[in-house]
Amino acid sequence: MTSTLPSPDLTSAREDLATALRAELGDDAVFTDPAGRYVGDRAVRAAPDTRFLLVLPHDVAGVQAAVRLAHETGTPVVPRGAGSGLSGGAVPTDGAIVLGLERLTAIREIDPLDEVAVVEAGVITAELSDALAPHGFFYAPDPASATLSTVGGNIATNAGGLHCAKYGVTRESVLGLEAVLADGTLLRTGHRSIKGVTGLDLTQLLIGSEGTLAIIVAATVRIRPLPVARRTVLARFTSSAGAAAGVGAITRSPVRPAATELIDGGTLADIDANSGSALARGEDAIVLIELDGYGIEEQTADLTVALEAAGGSVRVIEDEAEAEHLWELRRSGRGTGAGGHRLGEDIAVPKSQFAAILDQLAEIGERHGVETSALAHAGDGNLHPLLALAREEGEDPGSPRPPVLLAAADDLVRAALDLGGTISGEHGIGTAKRGWLDLELSRDSRNLQRRVKDAFDPQHLLNPGKAL
Amino acid sequence: MTSTLPSPDLTSAREDLATALRAELGDDAVFTDPAGRYVGDRAVRAAPDTRFLLVLPHDVAGVQAAVRLAHETGTPVVPRGAGSGLSGGAVPTDGAIVLGLERLTAIREIDPLDEVAVVEAGVITAELSDALAPHGFFYAPDPASATLSTVGGNIATNAGGLHCAKYGVTRESVLGLEAVLADGTLLRTGHRSIKGVTGLDLTQLLIGSEGTLAIIVAATVRIRPLPVARRTVLARFTSSAGAAAGVGAITRSPVRPAATELIDGGTLADIDANSGSALARGEDAIVLIELDGYGIEEQTADLTVALEAAGGSVRVIEDEAEAEHLWELRRSGRGTGAGGHRLGEDIAVPKSQFAAILDQLAEIGERHGVETSALAHAGDGNLHPLLALAREEGEDPGSPRPPVLLAAADDLVRAALDLGGTISGEHGIGTAKRGWLDLELSRDSRNLQRRVKDAFDPQHLLNPGKAL
Repeated sequence: MTSTLPSPDLTSAREDLATALRAELGDDAVFTDPAGRYVGDRAVRAAPDTRFLLVLPHDVAGVQAAVRLAHETGTPVVPRGAGSGLSGGAVPTDGAIVLGLERLTAIREIDPLDEVAVVEAGVITAELSDALAPHGFFYAPDPASATLSTVGGNIATNAGGLHCAKYGVTRESVLGLEAVLADGTLLRTGHRSIKGVTGLDLTQLLIGSEGTLAIIVAATVRIRPLPVARRTVLARFTSSAGAAAGVGAITRSPVRPAATELIDGGTLADIDANSGSALARGEDAIVLIELDGYGIEEQTADLTVALEAAGGSVRVIEDEAEAEHLWELRRSGRGTGAGGHRLGEDIAVPKSQFAAILDQLAEIGERHGVETSALAHAGDGNLHPLLALAREEGEDPGSPRPPVLLAAADDLVRAALDLGGTISGEHGIGTAKRGWLDLELSRDSRNLQRRVKDAFDPQHLLNPGKAL
Repeated sequence: MTSTLPSPDLTSAREDLATALRAELGDDAVFTDPAGRYVGDRAVRAAPDTRFLLVLPHDVAGVQAAVRLAHETGTPVVPRGAGSGLSGGAVPTDGAIVLGLERLTAIREIDPLDEVAVVEAGVITAELSDALAPHGFFYAPDPASATLSTVGGNIATNAGGLHCAKYGVTRESVLGLEAVLADGTLLRTGHRSIKGVTGLDLTQLLIGSEGTLAIIVAATVRIRPLPVARRTVLARFTSSAGAAAGVGAITRSPVRPAATELIDGGTLADIDANSGSALARGEDAIVLIELDGYGIEEQTADLTVALEAAGGSVRVIEDEAEAEHLWELRRSGRGTGAGGHRLGEDIAVPKSQFAAILDQLAEIGERHGVETSALAHAGDGNLHPLLALAREEGEDPGSPRPPVLLAAADDLVRAALDLGGTISGEHGIGTAKRGWLDLELSRDSRNLQRRVKDAFDPQHLLNPGKAL
């Protein structure tokens, strides 16, 4: 590939910045030739000729120093957690510092009596729950990526996951933040009690802002006692529409599961192909449910009544190993999809519209000649459809996604909006979804958001070109 | 009282504004001589010579028209729900339009399958739950003022209440808003699913902003299924410190009550004096607990074990009428306090610091020669201490609060901050708490908040002098 050589001036400015960063953060924190994994997240990669500096500070002071130097030199900063995102939020932009928070891994404090933990941004989400377990507590946010993703990245994207209908999205577990502002200042927000209403809630404003307002370096999070019991229930329906009706039946019952996952026939077949399981049976769709807390037998009984009345064939999974395996299959998702073009989506609709969006998905697939399947966090309206297309015989395995996949995705996102839904349930906007932003947000809303951005980052150096 | 007469110019400008408002909103929506109840909230009154126009729009368009006219004439706007606040947030400022939302009372939609309701700002909070009950649902936010206060006012102040440790503060039940911006534009924010991460979360930023960023006129709120069972438990301890230890014992247990109220001996005596009850017994303090949901017997058993191990004498209230009466006594608070000076506070501390703040309260009372008592939403760290002082013999019943009460309150708020707490748990800042704002928020935080305010309201016409 030919690319224009950087001008000597730019190159020397970059060298000067690297030198200044090394002087402040240490030689082992600055990389002018970063390893490949930093060029993208799990779904989006930077253009091949993107030049960036990778900075991996050892502590909060290092983050502040790096941001201050970026501020002084007018250098964009792209914050990065584990790079496990799916919307391009952490993908380098040309000339930027990619500021990785992976070395900020201290769990500073676990306080069962206050029901809080204070953790740095780079702590792996699942590891926080592991550290809490001996105290009898857990950290509720658990995106399917929990063993990869970081607490800070989850907060920056307001990550969702499987347990949000009962325990809330990440936002609802965050009480306070430490964040580095665009000029390198350290801001502390929030409180250590569940209540606190002093001033505008900057904690809540920063959550989900995808690194565009400030760089989250630590958080005071709410922790919860481990449930006294857990129970997995599997309900099988003869169609996706039937499974959607089953989800509605749960809503009409008094039971509120910890997790309610709808998995359609196509997804089941995909899981089976990748994992050697035997879940698929024709057009059958399943609803996989986790109950937890007190009264697990009564909950199971009420749930079973509701699901059977909706036509479901219900199996209570008594064996813990089997239950664990089922959730493992669910979390592992649909495998790598080797051999074909695939596009995973993340939309949300009002819960009552599940049957409608599943219908539309099938219809869109037929119209574009694209295979479709879906799984959904059905308790909270969040759907992850997959659009797939086999490669032509002899097609280069590195060939780009055919436009028809993107056209089908566009139709699908618009269908979600038409049903009163949203263009992103939990993955964020990043670069991948900016094209649809104007369809969901009014001009007034976008203008306001830009003015808020200006209030935090007047030079527009924090994660430029993302989210907004 | 003598006051300077308004200049003819100002008076005529005011008349012109009233005329313009009448033309747009109707004669019955504009009051140049408002009734007394509009001059304050439940704790703060405007100075006697404060002149203001009262506007009570019939609908959202009326709110927009009033705000547009205010914008064009540079007139401050003070939004008002039911006036049930305790921090002065809705108190008129001189020359302002007080914009009352009490006529926006439509419950536009109740959708059990989506688990949402769409309501206008003026709906009384308790009436929303009443309307939901036939559908098997309730609206979780329930400040003690729920029968007086409005959904919009609760959202504007991020109101708390008794059930927040389990169900969250108001913030956690709001999915989307309609709000009128400073120029009269109607902004729609949020979504109808539990998940949704498109753009900066303006919904969350507006919640708790006390009318300083925009005027909330409607909300899409989350509703929840009525619990299958409820149980009230009363634990008696021989001291406030003992009751605080009882609260800690609950935290160490796996039970998470719907409500956990700590009521000290002084408050019990006060309730008895006002309600003819017989709760007080010397220095005894009680913890009044509501359990709800599945497995109520197991919950009760685990709770009883925890409380008894902490030295509590536990009584499970089997009689529903008695339980209802106890909660009624708790909600009625401490009566009117006729006969003495009283100052109610609203602070929050980390839960582990309850014993410490109760100690400090007693110590501060002794030091200032002021009577103290306390009740607390102990599940979420929120404490409502009362500072009281008998009147001197022959003292004018309208005489102002003695400075010693204010000095004691100041010490108390500082003590909460020293313990890692906050100056307001749930009542908001309004005018009453602005003096302490700088103690809790850093200069950087305040500067950022001012810039966010500028982004929404560059003329500073929305609730000026409040909250920030």
